[in-house]
Amino acid sequence: MDLRSDTVTLPTPAMYERMRTAALGDDGLDGDPTVRQLEDEAARMLGKEAGLFVPTATMGNLIAVLSHTSRQGQVAMEASSHMYMSERAGSTFGGIAYVGIPGVAGAMDLGALEEALQRPGTLRTELVCMETSHANAGGAVLPLDHMQAVWSAAQAAGAHVHLDGARLFNAAVALGVPPDAIARYTDSTVICLSKGLSAPAGSVIVGSTATIQGAKKLRKMLGGTQRQIGVVAAAGLVALQTQVARLAQDHAQARRLSDGLRRIDPQFRVNIPATNILIAELPDTAPDSSAWVRALAQGGLLVRPNGARRLRMVTHRHLGAQAIDLALERFQRLVPVLLGKA
Amino acid sequence: MDLRSDTVTLPTPAMYERMRTAALGDDGLDGDPTVRQLEDEAARMLGKEAGLFVPTATMGNLIAVLSHTSRQGQVAMEASSHMYMSERAGSTFGGIAYVGIPGVAGAMDLGALEEALQRPGTLRTELVCMETSHANAGGAVLPLDHMQAVWSAAQAAGAHVHLDGARLFNAAVALGVPPDAIARYTDSTVICLSKGLSAPAGSVIVGSTATIQGAKKLRKMLGGTQRQIGVVAAAGLVALQTQVARLAQDHAQARRLSDGLRRIDPQFRVNIPATNILIAELPDTAPDSSAWVRALAQGGLLVRPNGARRLRMVTHRHLGAQAIDLALERFQRLVPVLLGKA
Amino acid sequence: MDLRSDTVTLPTPAMYERMRTAALGDDGLDGDPTVRQLEDEAARMLGKEAGLFVPTATMGNLIAVLSHTSRQGQVAMEASSHMYMSERAGSTFGGIAYVGIPGVAGAMDLGALEEALQRPGTLRTELVCMETSHANAGGAVLPLDHMQAVWSAAQAAGAHVHLDGARLFNAAVALGVPPDAIARYTDSTVICLSKGLSAPAGSVIVGSTATIQGAKKLRKMLGGTQRQIGVVAAAGLVALQTQVARLAQDHAQARRLSDGLRRIDPQFRVNIPATNILIAELPDTAPDSSAWVRALAQGGLLVRPNGARRLRMVTHRHLGAQAIDLALERFQRLVPVLLGKA
Amino acid sequence: MDLRSDTVTLPTPAMYERMRTAALGDDGLDGDPTVRQLEDEAARMLGKEAGLFVPTATMGNLIAVLSHTSRQGQVAMEASSHMYMSERAGSTFGGIAYVGIPGVAGAMDLGALEEALQRPGTLRTELVCMETSHANAGGAVLPLDHMQAVWSAAQAAGAHVHLDGARLFNAAVALGVPPDAIARYTDSTVICLSKGLSAPAGSVIVGSTATIQGAKKLRKMLGGTQRQIGVVAAAGLVALQTQVARLAQDHAQARRLSDGLRRIDPQFRVNIPATNILIAELPDTAPDSSAWVRALAQGGLLVRPNGARRLRMVTHRHLGAQAIDLALERFQRLVPVLLGKA
Repeated sequence: MDLRSDTVTLPTPAMYERMRTAALGDDGLDGDPTVRQLEDEAARMLGKEAGLFVPTATMGNLIAVLSHTSRQGQVAMEASSHMYMSERAGSTFGGIAYVGIPGVAGAMDLGALEEALQRPGTLRTELVCMETSHANAGGAVLPLDHMQAVWSAAQAAGAHVHLDGARLFNAAVALGVPPDAIARYTDSTVICLSKGLSAPAGSVIVGSTATIQGAKKLRKMLGGTQRQIGVVAAAGLVALQTQVARLAQDHAQARRLSDGLRRIDPQFRVNIPATNILIAELPDTAPDSSAWVRALAQGGLLVRPNGARRLRMVTHRHLGAQAIDLALERFQRLVPVLLGKA
Repeated sequence: MDLRSDTVTLPTPAMYERMRTAALGDDGLDGDPTVRQLEDEAARMLGKEAGLFVPTATMGNLIAVLSHTSRQGQVAMEASSHMYMSERAGSTFGGIAYVGIPGVAGAMDLGALEEALQRPGTLRTELVCMETSHANAGGAVLPLDHMQAVWSAAQAAGAHVHLDGARLFNAAVALGVPPDAIARYTDSTVICLSKGLSAPAGSVIVGSTATIQGAKKLRKMLGGTQRQIGVVAAAGLVALQTQVARLAQDHAQARRLSDGLRRIDPQFRVNIPATNILIAELPDTAPDSSAWVRALAQGGLLVRPNGARRLRMVTHRHLGAQAIDLALERFQRLVPVLLGKA
Repeated sequence: MDLRSDTVTLPTPAMYERMRTAALGDDGLDGDPTVRQLEDEAARMLGKEAGLFVPTATMGNLIAVLSHTSRQGQVAMEASSHMYMSERAGSTFGGIAYVGIPGVAGAMDLGALEEALQRPGTLRTELVCMETSHANAGGAVLPLDHMQAVWSAAQAAGAHVHLDGARLFNAAVALGVPPDAIARYTDSTVICLSKGLSAPAGSVIVGSTATIQGAKKLRKMLGGTQRQIGVVAAAGLVALQTQVARLAQDHAQARRLSDGLRRIDPQFRVNIPATNILIAELPDTAPDSSAWVRALAQGGLLVRPNGARRLRMVTHRHLGAQAIDLALERFQRLVPVLLGKA
Repeated sequence: MDLRSDTVTLPTPAMYERMRTAALGDDGLDGDPTVRQLEDEAARMLGKEAGLFVPTATMGNLIAVLSHTSRQGQVAMEASSHMYMSERAGSTFGGIAYVGIPGVAGAMDLGALEEALQRPGTLRTELVCMETSHANAGGAVLPLDHMQAVWSAAQAAGAHVHLDGARLFNAAVALGVPPDAIARYTDSTVICLSKGLSAPAGSVIVGSTATIQGAKKLRKMLGGTQRQIGVVAAAGLVALQTQVARLAQDHAQARRLSDGLRRIDPQFRVNIPATNILIAELPDTAPDSSAWVRALAQGGLLVRPNGARRLRMVTHRHLGAQAIDLALERFQRLVPVLLGKA
């Protein structure tokens, strides 16, 4: 019962079928027709001019940071976002200063952002990044008016906006809006095909034609330009066509799990998830997260530590209502022990 | 009739079959079993402790450069090698100075290399790179005693050695030696699965366990860590198992093409290929390479310019003896026109 | 009446005399004897093996950051320190990630520091920086036991410690300890000769012999190796010999100014300075700092904004008790107007 | 008898006098009046809009490289120039690729330059650098029509041109033209005040107002913004006003030395110097340069190795005709011994 991440999802039969029959070309030479189809489809869904297939969302985000900044540039983002916590490689690969802006539920404090945008000095904030849904904020979804406010503040300061939309489709489903209603407040957006959407690998960065041309050059330099990668892009196309609406089920299972966990013990505090991610705060008296991860694993439940005092659980295609109920039964046995009550 | 590159090769039926049935896992979490099998097989064949799957040889080479150098490091390589001519991104991503060493047939001048290794100054040469077979030298194969001499010079100066072995198997087949007889003169080696070996994508970097551990961290930072990428690694495994010996046929077709071209017109100078790459030097009186590329394309022959006065042709799995003969017929019609003789 | 910074101080007559007669050499060749004397004296006073003259404290700090980190390194420091606020050039010149640690009175929160030192991930915290006295914290002096705690935490995590001691002598005088009692909790320390010490220019970085050898190479690369710079180092020697104890007078004048300002209006909140820097918090109803700076300048008083709601004033050698009293008279006239009370 | 470099020259009495009386200010705050006077004078002499004082020519050149290139930029220069041989720190500090262009007497091969400017690929050549007089080419002076041709080629390719004019005044004197006749073929030029001009330290970078504004920001980031550095700039002003024409004497002494050395032994090949630098090629049978340096030093003659088989000698203000004749007497005794003839 793997609750660690929606990245563990396996390809669907329809994906395998499409991978087997996709038209292929050399994506480093004339282009691969299946890759091109995926790029066009992603751009269309997100309301942008063009798209570029990249191996991972991490590379897409790195390319965005390199694209939108000059050598002495600075990039601002919410201080607990995935890009700030885990992807600050632009520091070493591009000499770019990353500035963490404090936030609530993944949304930056707008006053602090304004200050970072306007502070005089040698390093200018040239790019602002957002993340929705926001992994470390328990899958929280940024309100559209917050995104619009960030977009306006950035534009007023002459800065660009990039969205780490690795789970943008979860946000769109939760808000009940089409994906382009989210991406409109950005200059570039990265989506990931291999999380809840279940493709084996691949992401797409979308933006203006000029941004994507520059991104293509950077992808080459970073070693992300693969040859007949239509074999993987094929699965991504099926993911976009068949898996987006289905994310609502992952969200329902996350709420089922959250409700069940709160019933087990009120001490075991867990968020009411907007999407498919649960963060459980461990009581002060409980052992720390690594002890929980080990004990739950022995009970057949794989979860992930999120710092020393928090656990993270993510629902996905391989966990239906029955699986969640089974998981809850096991939590029922283990949680009291771990809380020292059994 | 695509003679531009062996990167245009499509997967074999056996590759498709293996891709459909491969065991998968999350290569960013516990690892993917098929990826691990490929990494182990590559390491075994090249006589190294460990391997790491990377999306492209370009990323493998970039990781090697970043792994083996410190911040003020310098890397030396033959001045017409692919890494020097087309992959100097380590300059921008790692602040590394690239030094081009003059060479003949892809082999560095050893005196010039010694000088670069020993020159005092603020930037120290910490890494030496080689390439075999050598693309821009017409697929030339480095003699093993040259590789040994480079290895010794580097070791004496406390520098590491990396091999861009994107076409190492072509070199091994041409020399009639096992791949590890070549890789032994290196600290790390990159092989590519999607050139003559016909896999759709993927490369492997091999080296010591410590080097590969560091490489894994860098791969993550560069955005090269994919999830269920066993779907692609599966094809790579089939490539290693079924396509290496077959490269001899590509070499034979390259010689057939070379012999035929020399018969068409002695002015049309072309190398006697050691592997699968031909470089034709255009006569001074002929139009430049872009005009040739256009004219040949109209005749159904795709070739590639190699600077303004040279053409490059590469043989591969989709070009058997019959295809080469057909290509020669078309050259027969076009070459005299382009040389102004018809 | 220039209260903007102690950097405005002019050389003393003794400095001019020494500059005129100093023995000179080529500091980029065999070394300059006067520079060497200064380097030795600074190292001796701070209890370190060796010293290196640098044009500015900014270069000294940059060299320290480059010296103590590897390419994917990270450096942690108090989030309002001068290095974090104004000198993050190591981001662009060395690809180093700067992490701001929240603090009180210039002293980092030790829990947050521990977390930054221990967080697993791709970027490792290899260096911790401190600043004492701390400019943006109103010249606050770090307690020695805090410095020792930071030093211990860093050592336990295998990280180095650097001190931005641009005003270290102010801290030493305030604590009543010799300079080496402060520098002992560091691997390297930078002191500045052109602030309260009144030399026209110059700083010295001190540390182990190995650190200083590396620093010399970096100084050359950054363009900080000057030829007969003994003409400036001479003034620095006089500064170390004659100006350190005198800083107590600057501190006394700062307290005189602070006491006077508090008497003028209790709304005009100003710190009780430990050294020579005053930070005045403007009341919410008052105009913002730029308006104050302009109005005070018209009254002949130069002060500096410290963000939109704070003013900064610094005492120095050219401001004796009489000058401070004159300044207070002018504040007496201007403050009520600016507070809207006149 | 120090023939190692013209950097060993000491300040003149007029310089000391000016240093003692110069008006000073804080060059990091409102500016220093003497520094400003020097910057204006340098800009005027070189026909540029503005100038910026920097501690060294190395920093000036580094600032120029950082100013004129973007993050994936490339800079081309003659392969034996000082910037290429000894100042490639822009590689590590700016992620910039340095490309060495082969040349004769310090002048780049124009065909090779055109190729570097036009080669398609991921790294674009955004800046071309020249050096005149050219240190490693024996003080050779670039012909003005060569400079014009480089300038035209760069402009046609949309690249900027920077001149390392550390010894530009030697070139101007040798050509008999005013300095701006040389600097006109550049976007920015660095001059050095502490070589033949005898100031203790300091250089000036000149260019357009916009370039110099950007340069000021970079100087701050690199740690080159000093406070009352008018004490040094004062000497630089005297250098520009009194030492330029005097360089003709250094050139005459260099020719006297060159003529004398050739008379001593025809095997001891030495260039006929255009300016103040001599390069002697050691005969194949002679010991290598380090042995010569040691032996000559024992005879009281300090010279410098220039690689293993060459010696470098530089004339300057402290070496008049009498000193040169004395030096020649000593060479007369030592050269035959070193050539194995005595």
